Amino acid sequence: MTDAFQPSMLKYDAQGLIPAILQDATSGEVLMLGYMNEETLVRTLEIGQAVFWSRSRQEIWHKGATSGDYVRVLSIATDCDADAIVLQVEPLGGGVCHTGARSCFVEGEAGGEPRLVALVAPSAE
Amino acid sequence: MTDAFQPSMLKYDAQGLIPAILQDATSGEVLMLGYMNEETLVRTLEIGQAVFWSRSRQEIWHKGATSGDYVRVLSIATDCDADAIVLQVEPLGGGVCHTGARSCFVEGEAGGEPRLVALVAPSAE
Repeated sequence: MTDAFQPSMLKYDAQGLIPAILQDATSGEVLMLGYMNEETLVRTLEIGQAVFWSRSRQEIWHKGATSGDYVRVLSIATDCDADAIVLQVEPLGGGVCHTGARSCFVEGEAGGEPRLVALVAPSAE
Repeated sequence: MTDAFQPSMLKYDAQGLIPAILQDATSGEVLMLGYMNEETLVRTLEIGQAVFWSRSRQEIWHKGATSGDYVRVLSIATDCDADAIVLQVEPLGGGVCHTGARSCFVEGEAGGEPRLVALVAPSAE
């Protein structure tokens, strides 16, 4: 698959984007969900660091270019439909989140707890 | 946050959807990326099992209703922008993927390897 699969073979949405899940390669923690287009995915592969498409700014976003918090990418895997990818990563700077947290899904700058929407009661089945 | 945060406070896209990452609560493996709207998120909370909005079929999709492979949801966390959620889950049946694999991001039915797009060379920095 590694040789056969190319960024052009992934399925991008109407805006030309694919959701990219960043997972800490060491801890397994989900760090953030960003969006890439084919160009930024190719760029990610070229430089070995996460490069996204910023939907809010409508521009290429090399993560860490302003904050210094670059994210090294170790591998990229697609799902069965080729319309989502998971990147195994190693944060090179501080937290991955713009808040300073290690993950966008936790609160606070260090040792944060999940930003819980809900704890869910056991299902009845 | 648990009490204060409600599904109505999340940010849904133009189609009324929010990407929902399923992560195995035990192994930490990312199992799939699906989409929920507010209605299916509320339903997920009510029954403690993952309920999605199927974009291909344009209908509510109670995962496992046809396959038996229900997914128990233990907790739900949002990110800093409230436009993505991670669900800690426990698969109740076979694999989560429609292929039978334990994860949509791996190949084969058992013990599959990641569907690799690429292994990435170390970055120059």
